[in-house]
Amino acid sequence: MNPYDYADAHREAFLAELETLLRIPSVSTLSEHKGDVHRAAEWFRQHLLDIGMTRAELFETPGHPLVYAEWLGAPGAPTVLVYGHYDVQPVDDPEGQWKSDPFEPVIRGGALYARGATDDKGQTLTQVKAVQSLLENGGMPVNIKFLIEGEEESGSVNLYDFIDNHHDLLRCDVAVISDTHILGKDRPSIVIGLRGMTSLEIEVRGPSHDLHSGSYGGVVHNPAQALVEILAAMHDAQGHITIPGFYDRVQVLTPEQRADLAKNPMSLERLQAETDISEAWGEPEFDLHERIGIRPTLEINGIVGGWTGEGAKTVLPARAMAKVSCRLVPNQNAIEIEKLIADFVAAHTPPTVTSETRVLHRGDWAVVDTDSPYFRAAADAYTFGFGKAPVYMREGGSIPVVASLQRAFDIPVILMGFGLPDDNLHGPNEKFDLECFYSGIRTAIKFYETIGAMH
Amino acid sequence: MNPYDYADAHREAFLAELETLLRIPSVSTLSEHKGDVHRAAEWFRQHLLDIGMTRAELFETPGHPLVYAEWLGAPGAPTVLVYGHYDVQPVDDPEGQWKSDPFEPVIRGGALYARGATDDKGQTLTQVKAVQSLLENGGMPVNIKFLIEGEEESGSVNLYDFIDNHHDLLRCDVAVISDTHILGKDRPSIVIGLRGMTSLEIEVRGPSHDLHSGSYGGVVHNPAQALVEILAAMHDAQGHITIPGFYDRVQVLTPEQRADLAKNPMSLERLQAETDISEAWGEPEFDLHERIGIRPTLEINGIVGGWTGEGAKTVLPARAMAKVSCRLVPNQNAIEIEKLIADFVAAHTPPTVTSETRVLHRGDWAVVDTDSPYFRAAADAYTFGFGKAPVYMREGGSIPVVASLQRAFDIPVILMGFGLPDDNLHGPNEKFDLECFYSGIRTAIKFYETIGAMH
Repeated sequence: MNPYDYADAHREAFLAELETLLRIPSVSTLSEHKGDVHRAAEWFRQHLLDIGMTRAELFETPGHPLVYAEWLGAPGAPTVLVYGHYDVQPVDDPEGQWKSDPFEPVIRGGALYARGATDDKGQTLTQVKAVQSLLENGGMPVNIKFLIEGEEESGSVNLYDFIDNHHDLLRCDVAVISDTHILGKDRPSIVIGLRGMTSLEIEVRGPSHDLHSGSYGGVVHNPAQALVEILAAMHDAQGHITIPGFYDRVQVLTPEQRADLAKNPMSLERLQAETDISEAWGEPEFDLHERIGIRPTLEINGIVGGWTGEGAKTVLPARAMAKVSCRLVPNQNAIEIEKLIADFVAAHTPPTVTSETRVLHRGDWAVVDTDSPYFRAAADAYTFGFGKAPVYMREGGSIPVVASLQRAFDIPVILMGFGLPDDNLHGPNEKFDLECFYSGIRTAIKFYETIGAMH
Repeated sequence: MNPYDYADAHREAFLAELETLLRIPSVSTLSEHKGDVHRAAEWFRQHLLDIGMTRAELFETPGHPLVYAEWLGAPGAPTVLVYGHYDVQPVDDPEGQWKSDPFEPVIRGGALYARGATDDKGQTLTQVKAVQSLLENGGMPVNIKFLIEGEEESGSVNLYDFIDNHHDLLRCDVAVISDTHILGKDRPSIVIGLRGMTSLEIEVRGPSHDLHSGSYGGVVHNPAQALVEILAAMHDAQGHITIPGFYDRVQVLTPEQRADLAKNPMSLERLQAETDISEAWGEPEFDLHERIGIRPTLEINGIVGGWTGEGAKTVLPARAMAKVSCRLVPNQNAIEIEKLIADFVAAHTPPTVTSETRVLHRGDWAVVDTDSPYFRAAADAYTFGFGKAPVYMREGGSIPVVASLQRAFDIPVILMGFGLPDDNLHGPNEKFDLECFYSGIRTAIKFYETIGAMH
């Protein structure tokens, strides 16, 4: 059987395997899920052996383990490193927005709904199933290595050291990551730029304990008020970030580069359909796709302080805290940006309260080389898998491992994403479209066949 | 036995009764405590019968019941209405600041620690024990009515209608409320002014669901950011409230009135000792005691939005919410202030998000008549009970029932408080000093004896 027919014939089996994997609530940021995270790693390790990889093992870290697997039976052919992650975002659902249990996958309208469906269990498994389809039908035309981590959603805190310390193990000619989305099932696309990020926590403290707002209101500075004033000062009315120096290193694109990106604009209608907002927001001098693709941002991801339960409690809280993160673009430096933010917070903290800014995690932006033969092979594979040539786009999200792999091995990194824009990763009702799953497997098989024939 | 000796002889019994009452977690704002709130009401009803009141019953309301009790065996003598409340503040203790279980009272350093110890179970029981000491030793020299409610901490939503509909039942010559504090055990004081309050909830909504901050950051307005900008705009850098019209009706005190209040200043040292802050905050043109006593405030009591758990989650939240409350002073009108705030929020809500302002509850400010013979009797009673003449002060807190009783019966209302400034009501480790408990009982007995002899 050829690998494509094999993949088509095994759709139900592949889907059942994905469902099994999605039932494991491997939330890496929550310590109570540590056991589940380990179970997901072990599931991948065993599964990679089952499909015919010759080696598969867990590398323990101070946090969650890394899964490494390899099949090196194509001497002389290129070696591909597939990176993915088996951990998932938390499920924060105080208002019951999930229509079904996030960890009991269900199919609705041709898509599989579950936390991690698209980000990144479903997409990683797409690569695994492509490799399986080749191994079971004549063998892989290239050497293949898998590196699947369990800390992507909590900052990949142990990944980069692991890469630095295992250059021989991980050495490869090209890396492939399926953790992005295409524009639509009939609009395949390849991400050629990713924003970096830094995530911080800002805490403002006032009195030693919560106070009665009647007895102390008016003479004790309210830390929640001080915090909102600090945060409010970070943007101007047009949506520009006001932190001094924040934009200093932001690359200014040439008119040609901007015109090229404008071939793939983000429409207000699509944005409205995806988010239900009535008006877009942001820097007026940039188009929507530019605000996401080439401009940095600063977002409040969370804020909390005082009494937030039922009814009222007239408390003057002792402290208030916000989590903020920035998306960074070429040529911003995350460490420098963190310093600018910390300095800004310190400068805007009045003497009536104290503040602290803590870095939670960071990652570098990346730009992909579209001239490499591997990239062209990937583009051709999309044309085969989705019936249309892909467009190139700059994505607003961050996959810091891209820059890390580029640096470590001086290789091209291909972002072979199979998600859709409305997959709602990180939010409620995350999904993975089944057509994307199956077309993605075909695309990946084609990619491996093409680059296997290249040498 | 005279009532004072009786009270001294029964200290341990009185304390044990207070401990029993404090073990009932009667948190009126949390629906899961509805049964506990009812148990506390029933405890008071039975206890008031046990000490010799001739009638004691629960009046059910759409919320929590009111306890009413009476002893009218002194025809011709004045009738005193004692108001108190048996509900308590929630216990919000994410950081484990309570040194002991809030609902398992323990004595440390001569004080009883528990939620509700001072606010208001301990203080209400002080009045009950004074009445008991008189009833058991020759009878009350005045007629006495108790009205003890269970919704004080949740806005007394059913109290005012009850008062309006039960004028005959509640009719009295003077009302007494023990729900304030004195300046110190050797510095007795009587509150002669109380701030009013209004409590509101402000919610800002953006996208229909939480979004990935990478995919949408830069084009979708972050509701948490919009909310902090709205809240930040409510104060200027000097701590003045910037909501148009907010101060319009604030009474300007004469130099004489300000000089009188200045006899009882709040020292920065005391404020620092009570709160551990390094610098005071607030309107620079007013002294500390004025900022609390005669100036209105606007506080953020709570704020929440997005991911606030462990680690980071790069979410652009769908909504964010803040609870704010104002302390109001003569001659501000709560309903008018609510309208000004709602208008301000609407005017500061950009078209990229939506907002809603909801009123949670409100209460009027009050000023006490210091010329009434009842007030002078109370002052003399403090001199007897605490060994020193009391000073008069304006308190920052709110007890809306004061204005309500003044209006309903055209009577003086005496704020016969026995708490201490560091009792930490509404915060962790709330306490009631045992000396205050016992001296308070003596003070109240003296007050009843004095006014009984007046007619």
